[in-house]
Amino acid sequence: MFWLLFSIFLTACIAAGSTGGLFSPGPWYRNLAKPSWTPPDWVFPVVWTTLYLCMATAGARVAMLPDNGVAMAFWALQVALNSLWTPVFFGLKKIKLGMVVLTALWLSVAATMVALWQVDMVSGMLFIPYLIWVSIAGALNASVWRLNPDEAKQASAPAP
Amino acid sequence: MFWLLFSIFLTACIAAGSTGGLFSPGPWYRNLAKPSWTPPDWVFPVVWTTLYLCMATAGARVAMLPDNGVAMAFWALQVALNSLWTPVFFGLKKIKLGMVVLTALWLSVAATMVALWQVDMVSGMLFIPYLIWVSIAGALNASVWRLNPDEAKQASAPAP
Repeated sequence: MFWLLFSIFLTACIAAGSTGGLFSPGPWYRNLAKPSWTPPDWVFPVVWTTLYLCMATAGARVAMLPDNGVAMAFWALQVALNSLWTPVFFGLKKIKLGMVVLTALWLSVAATMVALWQVDMVSGMLFIPYLIWVSIAGALNASVWRLNPDEAKQASAPAP
Repeated sequence: MFWLLFSIFLTACIAAGSTGGLFSPGPWYRNLAKPSWTPPDWVFPVVWTTLYLCMATAGARVAMLPDNGVAMAFWALQVALNSLWTPVFFGLKKIKLGMVVLTALWLSVAATMVALWQVDMVSGMLFIPYLIWVSIAGALNASVWRLNPDEAKQASAPAP
């Protein structure tokens, strides 16, 4: 049963993660001013693959346990928000709206971690790296916003 | 507890549904050849609002019940795929890839419906309108593909 559940949760992660390949960082992102500590491009898929394995493991463990309702609801919420960020940031090039989505994602990941932890400590711990990474991604999104004020203004204006 | 769970699942639906506002049908979609039975634009948000209320209700009911693991995992999968379709179709204008995502969404909605039904019949039934609507959306996506062969070819080519 664990492996069936793991496969389903991992497929959900892959659906969310596929946005990274579909809306990949193009010339627009490369030309943005970025903080000195910006990770190189190759780091992102490596980190996300690790995080997706942790997320699917946590989801599958808790799905088999009683009183998992809140954790399962938050797991679904964070994966939906995870799918949303890349199309908003890289697809629409909306830096400020990306920040809004990332803030919502951070809150949902934190809530999922707490809810998982109450059912199964190991599952809660498996969400710690994810929360750390979303914090880093949030700091990066915020830095990009601060360093590219005109771009942030322009890209957020409605299309003509 | 029902209302807390309902709110979390509904927020996940809203995250998925926000793609409809962010990647809205523009001139590209209006200029595509479409079948005569294409619903008018205003129908889509009305139908989706209804479906999201049904989906959140089904999710919350089953989240409170034992042996809900498979249903909860599939619920998360379908919401991730639901978030994905609009950015692929309207954002990237990829008609063929949109068909792939819609097929995966249809399968995940059918699987969620069956899994929900095994835990709670009412929740399974609440997914029937969703499966019907995704079938209609699939037929529409397939028709658009058939009626716009050049557009489908062109839009699916990698960006220069």
